Amino acid sequence: MDLEKLFKPNSMAVIGISKKNPLSAGRIIFVKNEFEMNIKVYGIHPTGGELEGIKLYPKLDELPEIPDLLVIAIKAEETLQYVQYCADLHIPACIIIGGGFAEIGNEGLKRQEKLEKIAFDNDIAILGPNCIGVYSPPLIDTIFMPTERITRPPKGSVALISQSGGVLVDQFFVKFSERNIGVSTAVSIGNRAVVDEVMLLEYFSKIDKETSNIAFYLEGFKEGNARKFLQLAKESEDTVVTFFGGKTREGKVATQSHTASLAGNYKILSAALRQYQIIQPNSESELLTCLKVYDVLSHRKNPFGKNVITYGNVVIVSVSGGHGVIASDMLKKYGLNAVRLDRQEKKDLKELMNPSAREIASFNNPIDLTGSVVDTDIEDVVRYLSDIKRIECIILLLLPYPPNISFQIGRRIANIVSSKNKPVVCFVPYVSKYTLIIESLELAHIPVFHSIKEAVQAVSALKHRTRIDNVKKGNLFWV
Amino acid sequence: MDLEKLFKPNSMAVIGISKKNPLSAGRIIFVKNEFEMNIKVYGIHPTGGELEGIKLYPKLDELPEIPDLLVIAIKAEETLQYVQYCADLHIPACIIIGGGFAEIGNEGLKRQEKLEKIAFDNDIAILGPNCIGVYSPPLIDTIFMPTERITRPPKGSVALISQSGGVLVDQFFVKFSERNIGVSTAVSIGNRAVVDEVMLLEYFSKIDKETSNIAFYLEGFKEGNARKFLQLAKESEDTVVTFFGGKTREGKVATQSHTASLAGNYKILSAALRQYQIIQPNSESELLTCLKVYDVLSHRKNPFGKNVITYGNVVIVSVSGGHGVIASDMLKKYGLNAVRLDRQEKKDLKELMNPSAREIASFNNPIDLTGSVVDTDIEDVVRYLSDIKRIECIILLLLPYPPNISFQIGRRIANIVSSKNKPVVCFVPYVSKYTLIIESLELAHIPVFHSIKEAVQAVSALKHRTRIDNVKKGNLFWV
Repeated sequence: MDLEKLFKPNSMAVIGISKKNPLSAGRIIFVKNEFEMNIKVYGIHPTGGELEGIKLYPKLDELPEIPDLLVIAIKAEETLQYVQYCADLHIPACIIIGGGFAEIGNEGLKRQEKLEKIAFDNDIAILGPNCIGVYSPPLIDTIFMPTERITRPPKGSVALISQSGGVLVDQFFVKFSERNIGVSTAVSIGNRAVVDEVMLLEYFSKIDKETSNIAFYLEGFKEGNARKFLQLAKESEDTVVTFFGGKTREGKVATQSHTASLAGNYKILSAALRQYQIIQPNSESELLTCLKVYDVLSHRKNPFGKNVITYGNVVIVSVSGGHGVIASDMLKKYGLNAVRLDRQEKKDLKELMNPSAREIASFNNPIDLTGSVVDTDIEDVVRYLSDIKRIECIILLLLPYPPNISFQIGRRIANIVSSKNKPVVCFVPYVSKYTLIIESLELAHIPVFHSIKEAVQAVSALKHRTRIDNVKKGNLFWV
Repeated sequence: MDLEKLFKPNSMAVIGISKKNPLSAGRIIFVKNEFEMNIKVYGIHPTGGELEGIKLYPKLDELPEIPDLLVIAIKAEETLQYVQYCADLHIPACIIIGGGFAEIGNEGLKRQEKLEKIAFDNDIAILGPNCIGVYSPPLIDTIFMPTERITRPPKGSVALISQSGGVLVDQFFVKFSERNIGVSTAVSIGNRAVVDEVMLLEYFSKIDKETSNIAFYLEGFKEGNARKFLQLAKESEDTVVTFFGGKTREGKVATQSHTASLAGNYKILSAALRQYQIIQPNSESELLTCLKVYDVLSHRKNPFGKNVITYGNVVIVSVSGGHGVIASDMLKKYGLNAVRLDRQEKKDLKELMNPSAREIASFNNPIDLTGSVVDTDIEDVVRYLSDIKRIECIILLLLPYPPNISFQIGRRIANIVSSKNKPVVCFVPYVSKYTLIIESLELAHIPVFHSIKEAVQAVSALKHRTRIDNVKKGNLFWV
């Protein structure tokens, strides 16, 4: 089944365009792709005519060309006939937005089975039903919500596949944007009647060249898919990350009525995922942090170097003692270790400081440079620590409140990191006036987090990657 | 010891104003109080003269009046003589900003002991040393960082006491602002040589009338303070919330060099806190959620009624199935229970919906109104659920992405909640374009959260309050 036409079609047609209701799903999809996206779009309407100055075609077979992709946004009862047209006209890909299939029980289940039969008999890559489809910039966007209501993430290395369209658009798009995590393609699989997690894993790991990291938000595997999924993940050169909703009994009951799936026993699943080198974050925040780090590592200009190796030996640098305490608290939870600095190192660090901070700063790990810090103190300390081999990563808690920290500090740190190839992850408060500092770091591909926890998790994400790289290279069987 | 002069002084003097360095701590404090705050401020400088057009006085005893409060922002070695002046001139309150005391070891420890002796012998309420002091709007702000770098929280019911100044300004001020949690007074206690957590608990619970909720961020109790603290908390009519940094071994080592305290055994402490009706959140996010909820409950216009009673029986309403799944997942973790809706209720709810959503919506709990929802669907469903007695709280996951949800939805929900006295907590994505919706709800004192987890935690916070209210009224010994 050729999934490329789903994500990189040359042309698409939309069915379900209301002339009366400007907020109907089909019309929103048609108009946004026509005006916003870089694809040839055809609108189908039984009475033809035009909409917002664009010609509509009364029938699919009257289009000037056979489109690569058909988006169907009409009632369930009327959907199947258009799927049949896809077969008749040899349209290779189709997205079905509407619900009314397996998720509503008996009647819908039968409908979905018919749909599956047409698809598999005719080799049509059908996405959905009951989904929001695909966001594949700059080509297509089948999300039926007005674009101005959505927060779109930047372009990047992560293929994002979600069983829930709402979670994709809200939890992921919004938080990817906050964190500047880049997406190659985002996919809502809905009831995954035809195109499912296995096909998508195969496509994104073997065919799509824009993707280096593949993230799944699932409520469970489709029946019979687990083994194939694990095997594909193991063979994949991309990093595969899975996150499961519906882990508790209550959650499971919820997923049943949602997308007609049943979350399996999570503990057994979890052990298997680990064995097959799949990253499985424990929380949404861990998931986002992993993806942020792996997106940065996938960038050609990642300042940490090609093969980052960290077993979790870190140093924490802060200008607030309390922040150091909070970060230290979290190290153990994430299996990380605070590197001990020796007497000479502490002495050297002390001498790097300006005279008023020198006497009150603390050079245990966590290092507290105090509110008397100036830019050069932070620079010199980061530069010095970068040269200590047993420190694998620096967690820099960069609070711009002290009066002598300038707004140049981001750029100044960036220059050091870029020249040293030592992983540095930063915490900077998520406050709009600090955007300049955040951007200076992010432009140099230094990951910036807006909670202390996520900065610590970032090192844990690096450690996971080291483990998996080791296993995949056969260097070490460390499971 | 009279703490009122620390927080509500009629006049203050500042020592440590540099004429050369506009970013010196003392000068920042002097200038910000002179120009921004509603207090009479005197600046002391050995050479007198003036600064930014304001007269400076060469000596403390040449001021036109004896100030209520002296802020000392000079080196440790020179600090004690000014503390002695406080004694000589009968200045009742003093804040010492600088470090160089117990936290640096032996020499500093001796200095701190001398300071304590002067304070206790002369009944001077000294805050610090090694602290950022007090933010008591609209009167005083002794935070030595430029105000434009800080994010100040709104005015409200929470007295916020932190052992770490950095954590106070960054972790709390920024996040209180994001969540619209109101502060009565914020205090950084630093080394708490004289004024400590026990004195502050007593002051805020017995004397300060603006405060209804008292939150402590501590790394441990001061030696010998635990028992007094517990007893005061138990007697307090205010809600007392404590959160401890430095729970792990690594964290503890960090706190020692930070503010010269040692975190005790956390497990024993935790059991004691619970027994004395002190709320102890497990994470920073829980802490913030608790304070948000209690700040709302403390408002005269809180829409949930005077005595909120909830044992955690909730209904979840969403327009995205996936969001319902995530929220359901979390109920168990927080000891909450999804109320089962009976056949008639589900039928009634279905009939309230618009025709296109009706067939695809799901009325199990979590309720999924789907992306086909319109404003009146949400209104009618919330109104109907509000009248079901066994539902104690509604968690409304309000995603404004579906095209037919209008930007009036916040106001419309607010009107229903205000008339029903049924607790409703909302999740709305933290995206600037949704500010109108968020504000509509917040203006009606309906707590809005920006993560699903925090919305669920909010109900848990209500449940904790119910438990404590029950115990305090002697209705039930439920520990």
